[in-house]
Formats: sequence, structure tokens, C-alpha cells
Amino acid sequence: MSAKLAKYKLKTAVLGATGYSGLELAHILGRHPHTAAPLLMRRSSGTETGAGIKPGEPGGSHTAFAPGNGHAPIQPFSWSALEQHGVELLFLATPHSFSREIVPEAIARGLRIVDLSGAWRLKQEHHRAVYGFTDANAQIAAELTESAVYGLPELHAGKIASAALIANPGCYATSVILALAPLLSAGIVDCERGIISDSKSGVSGAGKEPTARTHFVSVADNFSAYAVFGHRHTGEILEQLALHASQFIFTPHLLPIPRGILSTIYVQLKREMKVDEVQHCFNNFYQGKHWVRVYPAPSLPEIQFSVHTNYCDIGFCLARDGRRLVLVSCLDNLLKGAAGQAVQNMNLMYGWDESEGLL
Amino acid sequence: MSAKLAKYKLKTAVLGATGYSGLELAHILGRHPHTAAPLLMRRSSGTETGAGIKPGEPGGSHTAFAPGNGHAPIQPFSWSALEQHGVELLFLATPHSFSREIVPEAIARGLRIVDLSGAWRLKQEHHRAVYGFTDANAQIAAELTESAVYGLPELHAGKIASAALIANPGCYATSVILALAPLLSAGIVDCERGIISDSKSGVSGAGKEPTARTHFVSVADNFSAYAVFGHRHTGEILEQLALHASQFIFTPHLLPIPRGILSTIYVQLKREMKVDEVQHCFNNFYQGKHWVRVYPAPSLPEIQFSVHTNYCDIGFCLARDGRRLVLVSCLDNLLKGAAGQAVQNMNLMYGWDESEGLL
Amino acid sequence: MSAKLAKYKLKTAVLGATGYSGLELAHILGRHPHTAAPLLMRRSSGTETGAGIKPGEPGGSHTAFAPGNGHAPIQPFSWSALEQHGVELLFLATPHSFSREIVPEAIARGLRIVDLSGAWRLKQEHHRAVYGFTDANAQIAAELTESAVYGLPELHAGKIASAALIANPGCYATSVILALAPLLSAGIVDCERGIISDSKSGVSGAGKEPTARTHFVSVADNFSAYAVFGHRHTGEILEQLALHASQFIFTPHLLPIPRGILSTIYVQLKREMKVDEVQHCFNNFYQGKHWVRVYPAPSLPEIQFSVHTNYCDIGFCLARDGRRLVLVSCLDNLLKGAAGQAVQNMNLMYGWDESEGLL
Amino acid sequence: MSAKLAKYKLKTAVLGATGYSGLELAHILGRHPHTAAPLLMRRSSGTETGAGIKPGEPGGSHTAFAPGNGHAPIQPFSWSALEQHGVELLFLATPHSFSREIVPEAIARGLRIVDLSGAWRLKQEHHRAVYGFTDANAQIAAELTESAVYGLPELHAGKIASAALIANPGCYATSVILALAPLLSAGIVDCERGIISDSKSGVSGAGKEPTARTHFVSVADNFSAYAVFGHRHTGEILEQLALHASQFIFTPHLLPIPRGILSTIYVQLKREMKVDEVQHCFNNFYQGKHWVRVYPAPSLPEIQFSVHTNYCDIGFCLARDGRRLVLVSCLDNLLKGAAGQAVQNMNLMYGWDESEGLL
Repeated sequence: MSAKLAKYKLKTAVLGATGYSGLELAHILGRHPHTAAPLLMRRSSGTETGAGIKPGEPGGSHTAFAPGNGHAPIQPFSWSALEQHGVELLFLATPHSFSREIVPEAIARGLRIVDLSGAWRLKQEHHRAVYGFTDANAQIAAELTESAVYGLPELHAGKIASAALIANPGCYATSVILALAPLLSAGIVDCERGIISDSKSGVSGAGKEPTARTHFVSVADNFSAYAVFGHRHTGEILEQLALHASQFIFTPHLLPIPRGILSTIYVQLKREMKVDEVQHCFNNFYQGKHWVRVYPAPSLPEIQFSVHTNYCDIGFCLARDGRRLVLVSCLDNLLKGAAGQAVQNMNLMYGWDESEGLL
Repeated sequence: MSAKLAKYKLKTAVLGATGYSGLELAHILGRHPHTAAPLLMRRSSGTETGAGIKPGEPGGSHTAFAPGNGHAPIQPFSWSALEQHGVELLFLATPHSFSREIVPEAIARGLRIVDLSGAWRLKQEHHRAVYGFTDANAQIAAELTESAVYGLPELHAGKIASAALIANPGCYATSVILALAPLLSAGIVDCERGIISDSKSGVSGAGKEPTARTHFVSVADNFSAYAVFGHRHTGEILEQLALHASQFIFTPHLLPIPRGILSTIYVQLKREMKVDEVQHCFNNFYQGKHWVRVYPAPSLPEIQFSVHTNYCDIGFCLARDGRRLVLVSCLDNLLKGAAGQAVQNMNLMYGWDESEGLL
Repeated sequence: MSAKLAKYKLKTAVLGATGYSGLELAHILGRHPHTAAPLLMRRSSGTETGAGIKPGEPGGSHTAFAPGNGHAPIQPFSWSALEQHGVELLFLATPHSFSREIVPEAIARGLRIVDLSGAWRLKQEHHRAVYGFTDANAQIAAELTESAVYGLPELHAGKIASAALIANPGCYATSVILALAPLLSAGIVDCERGIISDSKSGVSGAGKEPTARTHFVSVADNFSAYAVFGHRHTGEILEQLALHASQFIFTPHLLPIPRGILSTIYVQLKREMKVDEVQHCFNNFYQGKHWVRVYPAPSLPEIQFSVHTNYCDIGFCLARDGRRLVLVSCLDNLLKGAAGQAVQNMNLMYGWDESEGLL
Repeated sequence: MSAKLAKYKLKTAVLGATGYSGLELAHILGRHPHTAAPLLMRRSSGTETGAGIKPGEPGGSHTAFAPGNGHAPIQPFSWSALEQHGVELLFLATPHSFSREIVPEAIARGLRIVDLSGAWRLKQEHHRAVYGFTDANAQIAAELTESAVYGLPELHAGKIASAALIANPGCYATSVILALAPLLSAGIVDCERGIISDSKSGVSGAGKEPTARTHFVSVADNFSAYAVFGHRHTGEILEQLALHASQFIFTPHLLPIPRGILSTIYVQLKREMKVDEVQHCFNNFYQGKHWVRVYPAPSLPEIQFSVHTNYCDIGFCLARDGRRLVLVSCLDNLLKGAAGQAVQNMNLMYGWDESEGLL
């Protein structure tokens, strides 16, 4: 384009650039005004190829297909490559066990990190148990766990700005927490009567690994619940919302669509309320928050309006009794639920506008 | 096939044979061992064509595409045609207002009726209000409303056998009532804590009328809630389960699939129970009921296993506290949720095996 | 049902009952009036489960889900099990290399065989080359290859009736051969100008193995060509239609649907013809053939009308010049393209009506 | 963003902003660096709402949903509104008959126009006949028809730069013309042997009008050919490629996906060629053309890689005989096939980089 004064651009790397979230990150960072072209890496020298990449495409395999930006190669991971490229911020789109293993050294080397896995999201031991972490150095792992900031910008913008290690939230968790936070924060929910999130996700949420569950024939024309009373994201929802396990039910389902999450959430209010009061509670809480759109009741978000954006859309319906409330929360599991939120966190970490590179 | 002794075959008609349910009925009746080829009718001389029928197909427009049975024409409705064909049993796959209008005369003419619309399902005035019926003869309408039998064979087989007018249940209602009936009947549900059915339906449930909502581009890759706190099937669920409106929330959603319903239902038990007790409650209730399959916990039904069958599949997961229960109920909205159940009702009305023609 | 005189029922087995075609066969045979419940087998003691079967379903894993018939277990393959059950007819829904290996002994043991793989379809050495068969006994393999009958009932009913070994046609091949046979048989196609079949198949045609290609996210919202100038079914099409490789182009594509094939076929006629002449050519050729439906021009079949049936639907459009012809041929790749055709072959082998068990 | 020197921004309007292409245009123009927020208009005061817009969404009905840009209202069309906003460039995403009616006055008022309809694409009378235009002033219509420039930038960049009236190409036509132009231009195609384009389009190509054909249930799990030997885009393909009707067959099909076109094109070469020669022909022709990506043989484009981009992707396979060639061409029917190409044309008309606003 036109000549400009040289401007400093942040050096970033994406480790796990062959997966859905990693590839999405590569795309966003490739267009971000404040970052240089990201270094793209994969965990091993294996045969993984990127989502949306296939052997034989222009650029061949092991490249991230970034329209208009050429095709950067995806390299095997190495510390020396990170060093050589002067990487300052490392995005991890890797399995949690790998993240847990690699982050201590990365931090020791002075990198800042946004980890999209579940490795550092949970403060409470009994919630972490479900992941079965085996840390080489328990002491350091404990310290990192303690210092890690849960990267939900609408709740923790201040801490995110100065964090070294960001635990990027789970996709389901983001949709549930953002919908409930205003009400719980206002103290108007009767938690004892139980909160239920009946959540539905597109297939990219299940990862790129081909399995019997992700086979087209088993997903198309089908719909199913899974991991009832046992999904990993439950812990972070409970922690972030300060709920007890007995107060919350989370039921994930698999939708026959590539991307998008819709959570239908049921709460009971402590006292009879009017629609306007509830509306005001949401509007007020998200006043000035760019990436949450509150719908005016009784209109409700749909997945089609949030996919391919970084928005979390929230709407609600109040029963005539003024006590029973149905919330609907939608987002794109690969953007606000993963890569988009990771970039939103980066923007806060470096003092940029929260929406840079995400419009 | 091979020569047989002449056997009496029931004369039936399907009014509304151009819609999804009507066409499905035409298919089933065309293969049923105890019925003659059904008389297929449409309400008017309009331009409706059958689902799965298009002008130019073998047989032309206004024919029901019945593989292997040739292609019976769909005629405009007339009493004389019904009489001429000696029709004994009339299936109505018509809008509720039309059904409400036509049934009094049909009954007066001595026909037995299975009405797939919502015209006669509700005994309570305040539940009926949502339909806005305008009856020509209020007295007769009231009598018919009173005498109509809610055609859910697993609950009302006895009354169905001798009924003149069957109100075939709604598709959503069938999935919810069959899942909850065993527990409510056993008196183990704490209804005061509220029952929630988060239900999801394929697009054929929305009817064959092309609308902005049923346009492929608006459904594909999308998912949305609708009619929250206001869906018509709520009334029949409340009546059949003897619940108060305050005890039950029903939230329908539109799935991007052609057919199938899955209801995820949340209940709280009055006392702590074991998985086996709950399992026994379901197994016992549906002992000998051909068209309900109870899954052994914690396995859960999926839409793919019930579509193209007349089964309602039911499974459950019990929380570790033994109090909170998640039920999953699946069926094919055009079969167990409409045409299949209508034929099941017919089988009971004429003393045949409940599964005749439905395997 | 009602008591009947004992009737002899054929003893069959399905080897490879965990795959899509094998499971479909299990369903059809389970309802066939002239066959006993089939013996269901898998190749090994591996962890394969049937399509439409999942662990935890009623009956558990390794069972074929046959609604209304209970759930027969799928056993590991053994000759003794075949013998013990008195199996007379063996269906092979196995990879071609396995079929090639097992058939010699099966024939030696006096079994009749319908093999759904490509193992015995090709008479010409250079067409077989693409499969890379390695036969233990080349002499016997050659004899079996020679004696095997290509199981396309509309072309070879006579030979099928007395065959010991049926090579059930490929799904694509069935759609192409049935569309072209009437025209080529009438000698009206200008083969020198080239025949093109642009074919499109649903994903079940790619098999149940989860791969990057069958992952939901890679198939949904997508469409692609593959194996251009190199698909295995080309050989059988050429052989059956007596064409040279230079006269025919076959281009398969992957459709984002679970099942169904549509082939759009382009031919040029030797002389100017009228629509009626072409129509007559098709109608005449398929006169009395139950499982081919010829559409009246210019109406064309669609995948939706042939899936879940055993029909091959054929239609055509003739250009105004009377020389250029577009054919459209549709079928269900798992029925007329595999399991349905296999049963149609069985019906001919045992002298039953061609449509028994398939309506 | 940051303060900048005031920069002139082009005033544009989109008429027909409620349809798929119009809405897509509204999105692109809303982010384009050289255009002011576009004036969005609809033809009438009717009840149309935009694709991706629904009543009750933030901003209400009749607004274009432009994430991050607020929600501009869609006004009824009026000349005074155009004048008042100082509109210089008018995009028409309207039916061809409306375009044909309105363009003469728009030109007279000094507006430049990019018309996405078929109103001005055809120079030859007999090709135009299929549209059945009825012009108020035949003389002016003829002059406009003559002066209109077919807006395919890869072929006509020079004329586009100075045109007052751009006829934006059809979506199918773009995919076919771009694939064939290099070969025909090089004079290596044996046109007498016939060229065939077997093309497949997603449903948004059929427009937003709900019809029996666009109903989800009729599209999902289905695939069909239509308008064989009679599709309107045939004329512009013939004109642009200087082919005779007898040399070209175009067969469109409806894919069960929201967006994307793939054309499989069959040509025969005049002489035996090598893969490298053909590759060079494509690479050379599209050297420096930003929005066409040529794939290295034998890799082929897929719809998934071109949707949501403005690229037309082209690949080919050459038969071993070096004479028969299969081309595959993919694009997004709403971008390179409509709105994206319209903006590409605008970029050329105003001397901007061809890719401005489209990355």
C-alpha cells in the first residue's frame, strides 16, 4: 500500500497453527495493524495440516492459508526459532497437557503467553483434577496457576493488561459466564433454585481430529447431548461465577453446523422483576464493552448473527411471573470463544483498542 | 403377491395429503396390511403440491409419491368423494381451524377421525385460548372437545380403542410427556422446583409453507430459540401431566436438520435416588410398550437413531447428588410425533397390533 | 404375528456388518420375507462398531441396530460360525483385498456369494490393475474372476439367477451404466465425440472410516471434485458399456449430504433425434424393470426422491439441435448402489420376485 | 481510530440492500477505506428485511447489520435521498427489470452505476430476448446497452476505469468465463468438439425469496439439476468467450450449502499438450491479477477455500492423452460472483488498488 513511517510491530508466534483455533489466530494476526506476520508453528514434525489447508493447495501442505497475505509455512516447534524471530508474545493453541509442559520455560524465557487451552484456567484444586495434570515442577506450576489471569476481558480487563500468562477461557464457558455475570453481580439470582445452561456447539468445537463422532455421516441430520454432568468447562464457569457445583447444571450438545455456540440458560430471580429492570441490568453491565451486544427483550440472538464475528450476543425473555428468566447467549466458538478473544486479550496486554484487528 | 383369501381392508382418507405429515401418512397407509389404498385429498383446488412431490415427476403434480405403489392422485376435498369411497376413518393433517370447522359434520356422518392438528387436544378453556377457535356451533364443539381422546397410546390405549375422535398429540408434546410421565406418575418429582424442557426440532416441524424462517440460507449453519414462554404445545403438556404453568418451562429451538426432535428435560427429585431406581421407574412404566425404547443410563438417545422410525427413545443422567435428573427424549416429528402415532392410534381403534404397518 | 405354516427361510450371513453397506444389508435381511435373521459378522475382533450404532445404545456395541427386531450381535468372522448356522448365501461388505482372499475358500465350501466390493467386477487385466490384487492361488482367482457375474439385474438377470459368485456393482457405476445402457444398446450414441459423467456422491460413499476428508467441518458447506481421471469405478463402467478409455470421462465429486448419488451425463447422438424417440428408447429398455424409473422429459430426478429407496431414477434433456443430450441419474448409494442391489441379486438367485424385501 | 487529515470519501448508495448481494455490499462498503458509509435503500416501502437481519435485532428491522459500524437504516428508494446524500456511485442489487427501468434516469442525473442484475450484460439481441425487457425509451436503452461495460476486471480493466455503467457479471458466468478465457485466448481449445460446464451453486444464488425450491427441507440432503439448456447466464458466457450456442453446454445444479459455486468444465485441446504448457497458459494469463488464484496441477480448488473471499480459484487436470482437460473453478457467489466483484469494479473506476476493501 502507500509508504508510511516505519512503525513498530509486535512479534508473535502461534504454536498449534494447524488446528482450527490456531489457524484462525494466524488469519487474524496476519491482518492485525500492530503485529508483524506471526511465526506459525506446530508441535511436532508430524503430518498435521491446517484446517482449511490441504496438500496440493497453493503453497503446499504445512502452510496457513492466509488469503491476500501469501502463505506462511508452519514450522516444527523450537525454542531457537522463537528466539531467532524475536517473539515477544506466544499464543498456544495446543492441548492442555502440552501447554502445561511448555509454559514454565516460556515464562522463564521472558515470553508473555496467551494460552487457549484449559491448562491455567482453574484456581481450585478439585476443579483442576478433571484435567489430570502431571507437572514436572509442582512448585513452579502452582505459582503459574496462581498468577495466571483468566482472560475474559469483560470481567478482568485490568489484570489482563499486566499479565504475563493469560488463560484464554473455554468457548462454552465464555457464552455462559458473559450471560450470567450481570445478573449474579447484581445479586438478583436465586442460586439455590439452580441455574441450568443447556448449551449447543458446532463441530469445530470438537477439534480437527477425525473421529467417529466428527464423521460427517454421524453429525449431519443428527443432534445429541454429551458429557452430561461431566464437561470440563463446568469448573471455570463455577469459579468465575462463584457458584457451587450443586447450583449449576451444564449440558453440552453437538449441533450439525461447523461453528457457533448457543447457550439457553435458565435462572430464577430472588424477587419479581420487570423486563426493564432486567434489561437495564444487562445494558448497564456491558455499557462500553465493545464485544458484547445486548439484545432488547424479547428479541433473541441467533447463531447466524454472531458467527464470523468476535461478538457475544445476549438476550433474554422474562416469564409473566417476573421470576423465571430464560437467557440466550451466542458466539463464534473459534472467535469470541477462542482466537478472537485471544487477540482481544493481546490488545489489552499491549494497550491497544480492544477491537483492533477484530472488525 | 401370492393369492390369498379376500381380506377386508379398512377404507381411510387423508385430508391434507400435500403437507409433510399428510404425505407421510399416505406412505404408511399405502403399505399397511389392514388398510386399502387411502383416498388422498387436499383442502382446496389450490396449487399445493406434496412434500417430496414436484411437477414433472412420474405421475405429475398433485400426486403422492408412494414408491412401489404407483402414484395416487390427490383430489380436492368433498364429502361426496368420502362417501363414494366408503371411507370409515378420516385422518386430518390440516390446520387446526379447518379441523375445528369440519369435524362436527364428519362425526355426524359417522366417520371416525384422527386429527393431527391441535383442534381437540385441550380440555381447559384457558389453554385453548391460544388457538382462538371460532366455532359455528359452540355446543357441539364443546361436546366434541369433551369427548375427544388425546391420542397418546402409551397413556390412553383404553380410551383410544373406542374413541370416535382422536386428538393426535403435538410432536414436541409427545417427546416431553413420554419422558416425564413415568416420573410424575411415580410421584417422585419435586414439581415445585420447576421442570424445564429445552426442546429442539428439525425444520419439517415448521410446516411446508416457504417462509423467511424456513429458507435454507436462514436455517443452515444456524440455530435459534423461538416462542419462549409462548409455544402452543405447552398447554397439552400441562394438561397431560397435570402441571401448573408455574411449574414448567418449555423452550423450543430450530435445528438445521429436516426431521427429528430432541428434548433435554431437567427435573429435581423429591428425595435422593439411585440410578437403578430411576431406571426401574422407566423400564417398568414402558414394559410392553412397543414404541418407547428406554436407554440404560448413562447412555442417551440421539436424533439419528429415532428418525425414520416410530420410536420415542428416552434416556437419563442422574447427578451424583441423586436429586438432579437430566432426561433426553428423541423422536421423529413426522412419525411418532405425527403420522406414525396417528397410525398407532388407528391400530388401537381397530384392534390391531400396535405396530402393524409401522415396522 | 399370526401363526403360519412353517416356511423355509434362507440362511444368510453378512460379513462386514459394521460398515454402512453391511448395516443396511442387516436391516433389509432382517425384514425380508424369505430369509432368516442374518448372521452378522465383522472381519476381526477389533473395535469397529456399526454405523448407526454406538456403545451404550440398547444392546451395547457390536450389535446391529435393527428396530423392531431386537439387536443381533455382530460376531468376529469364522468359518465354523458360518457352518454352524448353515449359511447358504454370504454377503461380503468388506474391502476388496479381503474379499479376494476369502472368496476362493467360501466357494470351495459351497457357499453362494454376493460380494459388494470391487474384487470380482473386472474381466480385463488392465482394468483390474488399479486394485493391485495379490492372489494366493492365481489360477483359482482367474477362474473365479471369469465366472463371477456382474450383478446388475437390469442387464444380467439371466446369469445372476444361476451364479455362484456375484460381483455387486459399484455405486457410481450403477448410476452411470443404467443411464447409458439404453442409448448405447440402441447404437445411437456418437461415442467418438466422448461421453462425460459428472457424478456427485454423498459422504457415506466414502466409507465409515473417520478421515480428514470425512470430518464434518471439511465436508459441510463445501463441495469438491476428486480422483479426476483416476477413479476405480471407471473400469467397470467401460467394461459394462464396451467403451474405450478415450471415449469416457468420469469425474466424481463429494456432496455435503449423508447419502445419494446424482450423475449428470453428457452424450452426443449420431443423428438428430426427437424427444419422443429418446424417451421411447428409455421406456422400452426399462419396460418391466421394477427398480428403474424413467422420468418423462424434461422432468429430471433429484436425489431426495431416490434416497431411502432401491430405485435408480433416470431423466434426460435434449438440446434443440436434437443431438446433444444431458442425462440425469439418481440413486441411493447404500441401496441401489450397494445393499439394495445385493438383495435384488439375491432375489434373482433364489427365484423370488425382484422387489421382495425392498419395498 | 487515531486522528487523521480529513480525506475525501466517495459517496455511494446501495439500492436493494435487503437482498443477499445488497447486504454483502453494505458490509464491504461500510469498511472500505475510500468510501463513506453507504446510503442503503430498498425498492419500495414493503416489508422486505435484509438477509441476516431480523425484526427485533439491535436496530430493528430495515437495518443492515454491520458489526462494529452501528446499524444504518434501509430507506425506501427516492431520487431526492440520493441527491441529498450527494451520491456519486450507485450500486443496483435489484431485479433486472427494475434496473432496466431506473438506469436511464440515473445516468441522466450524472450518477455512475454498477448494476449487479442482468439488465445490461448482453450486447446481442437474441441473448437479451430471454430477459424480455420492455424499455420505456428503446433508443436510450439501446445506447446504454451499447455503452455498458461488462464488469469482469480480469478481462476489461481498461474500459471499466472510464465506464459510466458497469454490468456486473453473473455469478455462474464469472466462474466459467475466468476458467476458460486463458485457454480460448490462447487458441488451443477445439471448440467444435464442444465445451461443457457442469456448475453447482449454493442456495443464496437463488435469492432471498422464500419458495418451495429454497425451503430447507427441499434443499437439505438433496441435489438437483435445473434450467438445463436454458439458464440465463448462458448468453453472457457465449458473448464474453465468443462461442456459438452449439459449442457450449451449461448445466446448473443446486447445492445444499448457503454459498459458493464450483464449475467443472470439460474441454478438448486442438493438439496434445503437456501439463506444464497448460499450467503456463493459466499462470501467464493471470500474472498480476490479484483476485484469481491458479492452482498447480493436479491440485484442485474446493468451495471451502474460496467462500468468504473475493478470489476465483482455478485448477485443472489433463488426461494422459494430453487432449482432454477438466477445469475446476470456485468462487463465492456473493463476493467474486456479485458484491465483491462490484467493489472490485468500483476500485478500478476510481483508480484505487483493485483489492481495497476486499481483503
